[in-house]
Amino acid sequence: MGPNSSPRPTKGSVSNAPSSETCNGPAWNRKIAAVGIARSLTVVPRVLIVWPAQSSRKDRFRSRRSTVARVRFRLVVGSIGSLVLDVTIAPEGQLKLDDDRDASIKIGGGGQAANFCAWSAALGETARLVTRVGDDELGRRLVAEIEAGGVEVKAVLGGEPTGAIAILIGPAGERTFARQERSVLGLRAEEVEEDWFRGLNLLHIPAYSLFAEPLASTVRRAAEIARKDGALLSIDLSSAAGIREYGGAKLALDLTMLRPEIVFASEAEAAELGAPLEGMAKVPVVKLGTRGARVFSRRVPASRVDAVDATGAGDAFAAAFCSAYLDGATPLEAAGRAVLVGAFAVTRMGARP
Amino acid sequence: MGPNSSPRPTKGSVSNAPSSETCNGPAWNRKIAAVGIARSLTVVPRVLIVWPAQSSRKDRFRSRRSTVARVRFRLVVGSIGSLVLDVTIAPEGQLKLDDDRDASIKIGGGGQAANFCAWSAALGETARLVTRVGDDELGRRLVAEIEAGGVEVKAVLGGEPTGAIAILIGPAGERTFARQERSVLGLRAEEVEEDWFRGLNLLHIPAYSLFAEPLASTVRRAAEIARKDGALLSIDLSSAAGIREYGGAKLALDLTMLRPEIVFASEAEAAELGAPLEGMAKVPVVKLGTRGARVFSRRVPASRVDAVDATGAGDAFAAAFCSAYLDGATPLEAAGRAVLVGAFAVTRMGARP
Repeated sequence: MGPNSSPRPTKGSVSNAPSSETCNGPAWNRKIAAVGIARSLTVVPRVLIVWPAQSSRKDRFRSRRSTVARVRFRLVVGSIGSLVLDVTIAPEGQLKLDDDRDASIKIGGGGQAANFCAWSAALGETARLVTRVGDDELGRRLVAEIEAGGVEVKAVLGGEPTGAIAILIGPAGERTFARQERSVLGLRAEEVEEDWFRGLNLLHIPAYSLFAEPLASTVRRAAEIARKDGALLSIDLSSAAGIREYGGAKLALDLTMLRPEIVFASEAEAAELGAPLEGMAKVPVVKLGTRGARVFSRRVPASRVDAVDATGAGDAFAAAFCSAYLDGATPLEAAGRAVLVGAFAVTRMGARP
Repeated sequence: MGPNSSPRPTKGSVSNAPSSETCNGPAWNRKIAAVGIARSLTVVPRVLIVWPAQSSRKDRFRSRRSTVARVRFRLVVGSIGSLVLDVTIAPEGQLKLDDDRDASIKIGGGGQAANFCAWSAALGETARLVTRVGDDELGRRLVAEIEAGGVEVKAVLGGEPTGAIAILIGPAGERTFARQERSVLGLRAEEVEEDWFRGLNLLHIPAYSLFAEPLASTVRRAAEIARKDGALLSIDLSSAAGIREYGGAKLALDLTMLRPEIVFASEAEAAELGAPLEGMAKVPVVKLGTRGARVFSRRVPASRVDAVDATGAGDAFAAAFCSAYLDGATPLEAAGRAVLVGAFAVTRMGARP
């Protein structure tokens, strides 16, 4: 049995879906068509398959009988990590100390976990974000914004100010980060409820969430609960600089312990790990940027687009991959959809759909 | 006749106020008491004298007959210039290129003209802000925020994105600015209505609004209309670096042409001008930071406070000075009130009351 046809545990709600819907059926065609339409409209429909977000699983089965057979079951994906404000500053020329110069400044919701959930919701899944924000105006606004995008948010209110990340873009495109992230990094295990990690088809973990305590311990506990309840795990390696600081070998050990189904990495991130990505997960996915993606040894090319803003494109890629994979697609098929959605994300300003 | 007792043109609504109210009467006592209370509550009452903001002048006279004699007439002050988002980034240690480090990041409404109006409204005046923002989410949010503070906003919607200023704080407190300000700097004379500058007791002009075209021409035209309608002008020299770039002599010439009643400058700004501040306005006010202020040759000391954030303190100072001066206070009395309100502003986070 090749890796592309490996069986995998699926939630009852997924396996109950009509088989014609699990891979290339109308639901997916509608998704792809919607993304195609969205590319011309520059707006992604927030929810492509209408389903009450708050309904219990029992309700869903009841509802299903009254809906047409073509409606597939929505998957439930979750992520744990940061919900922050991204401030991207691109000065005209090199910014010097005590300088005063013109710049382009963009402001928008960000955070890898939050972006993954926002893209998952836009792709029609039920997405649940577990995060920690400050008890302040910014936190309330960020939560309201992502909830408006269809994401269910479980936000612990901490004493530290809500997260924000300033990204300074240099003249050659180099990125310098200043992070205010104590709020989410301080998420303690006793602050989250076990139920938040139950009923998931997949829990997506940005490696950022593994780099610092007490968040890392909380995430490991969440992964345990989710897996015991039948969820798959996917892990995104997040940042080559972050891995270097945390330690590649240490992260490789974390991955071995967490045993994710899917691992996402850029080439730089995979290199920092210092161990073959293939040994880290059942499905290792290397993101190649404009060149597409590589799954096992096969490359899936990306379509050429006019790049506007690459922020969040990796999260869009991961959300689309997970959605397709959970839906029954092979890893190569899932990668094909992921590069499509990732390329679409690059054509839009901001990290979110 | 000494400079402290110079007569000045006042609007009908002001000169009609009971004489016991023009200087140290109950209205001012209430203001000072309110600021005193606010210092313990850390909240400034938005409006200290209740008066319908949208009522016509005719309505006011009608209303006046039915109110108690102690209520003084609200002054109407205006300002023209920027309404922006301030993003203040204080990294832990020196930020280096391609770096990734922890920081404190603060986000809030800013812009000298907007801050002046917000403080004026909090001090009980009717304040009108003329500005230009982008037709975007940030612009709508900034306008709504300052309107909620009691400011009447006349915002032209431009094609450029709404203004934002990133302020990087170095380890020794040095400030590096990256500015996205094309929106307000692009305010053209044909985009504003003459009526916006009528009915004012005072028009406050940040020198920032004189540094670039087409905004500078629009401001000069606005000043002409306001003055013809009986308003005083006050000018804040804004930024030593800005004056250096624009040219001290050029700004001195602008001031000579505009003939402001009041000019505000820090010592560094006054030095950049290259000409005695005394020749630039009837009332030259030098802001000395923690040491208070100097009017003509007399220094008014500031009270000692625990400084939290100095952003906007100069605008609070100017708003309080103008309010008191228009109300009949001598320049020295006005400076006394201004250092009080300026010191209060320093104890609070953000640029606004």
